[in-house]
Amino acid sequence: MLSTIAFDADDTLWHNETLFSVTQAQFREILQRYVGDADIDARLYETEVRNLRLFGYGIKGFTLSMIETAIDVSGQQIAAHDIRRLIDFGKAMLEHPVELLDGVEAVIAALKGRFRLMVITKGDLFDQESKIARSGLADHFDAVEIVAEKDEATYRQIFERHALAADTVLMVGNSVRSDILPVTALGVRAVHIPYHVTWAHEQAGGDRPLPPGAHRLERIADLPALVDKLVSGAS
Amino acid sequence: MLSTIAFDADDTLWHNETLFSVTQAQFREILQRYVGDADIDARLYETEVRNLRLFGYGIKGFTLSMIETAIDVSGQQIAAHDIRRLIDFGKAMLEHPVELLDGVEAVIAALKGRFRLMVITKGDLFDQESKIARSGLADHFDAVEIVAEKDEATYRQIFERHALAADTVLMVGNSVRSDILPVTALGVRAVHIPYHVTWAHEQAGGDRPLPPGAHRLERIADLPALVDKLVSGAS
Repeated sequence: MLSTIAFDADDTLWHNETLFSVTQAQFREILQRYVGDADIDARLYETEVRNLRLFGYGIKGFTLSMIETAIDVSGQQIAAHDIRRLIDFGKAMLEHPVELLDGVEAVIAALKGRFRLMVITKGDLFDQESKIARSGLADHFDAVEIVAEKDEATYRQIFERHALAADTVLMVGNSVRSDILPVTALGVRAVHIPYHVTWAHEQAGGDRPLPPGAHRLERIADLPALVDKLVSGAS
Repeated sequence: MLSTIAFDADDTLWHNETLFSVTQAQFREILQRYVGDADIDARLYETEVRNLRLFGYGIKGFTLSMIETAIDVSGQQIAAHDIRRLIDFGKAMLEHPVELLDGVEAVIAALKGRFRLMVITKGDLFDQESKIARSGLADHFDAVEIVAEKDEATYRQIFERHALAADTVLMVGNSVRSDILPVTALGVRAVHIPYHVTWAHEQAGGDRPLPPGAHRLERIADLPALVDKLVSGAS
């Protein structure tokens, strides 16, 4: 019955969170010159979560949250030239080459033609479109959905718009919170493939028991074999 | 043959550019304390256009461009507490109430039921979704399309996805560049309703001759009468 495989993008098809981690390390280094060993990571995370309601997900919001945190944590002592560096960090992230995870190209090639392939990703529209274009994978997908939040209501709308019955879809992603729980709640099967870094807000859950209808793989290279099992009804 | 009316959102359904203008005046006031009467507006515009490639359209990118301009124009002399104010300006813009243009509610009520109504808007996904939700108009639209850029290719995709033949659609918007030219190039009729402030990048054009298939109205309140004429074949 399986006809459609939908993929999350960031940290499922290509590396993303590592880019945030590397930038955050550079941010920490700048801030430490002002405030020693204050818990800079925790302060940045607080700012990010507080700003989510206004900024949503993505690099531009992250950059604004870095600047806000830098000003607040430094007691407004941070120099303009250091803030300029934070803007440049954001720009470097936006221009960073899209690096596919190991095995992604082979997996897409193996599944293409047999299934309708989709991307369902959240974040900044402009940045996500740019990454899909730069990934070299765009032509392989029958549909790309970029959404502001990945919750049940959003997935329901997407599946309805594409006239996809729940038992025909398999969702693949690295976040239990965004890619697995909201789709299994709709009766859609899902595959969790943990990424080695997970933003705190996505609540790793890489070792939590999965809900019924969800599978876990260590690497995306193992997906075609799982799909074959699902199609043959063995799993 | 007309079955679908598609509306641009910012400065067509609700005020938007005035919010940028008001913020930019506050920005100018802060910067003038550092640099006297340098051409701050021109410098900000240069930064915005240069950053469009990375940031796309929207308030977060505008806020980052304000900060960058402030640092560069002040020769890195701007104080952190003034940069903090720029972030707060951006947040205030994101939370600003959505103010419908005069007549919008009556026009939507008059057309609803008779036509399929759509929104086609560009900019930041998260912010645009939030504005549509806060506008109180969401339930009146059959479809909402938020896109990164309004060019011919994007409109073609939208019309194809919704299976809309060119002669069944009327596009309504305030920007000749984004709402009129790319749709009339596809053989779709359009209505230009100028807004009293236009961002330089959208190239006003409020007095330029329009392409064939395009009409111009002074206010959206006049739209139902024009639609009646188009339907009756009188125009």
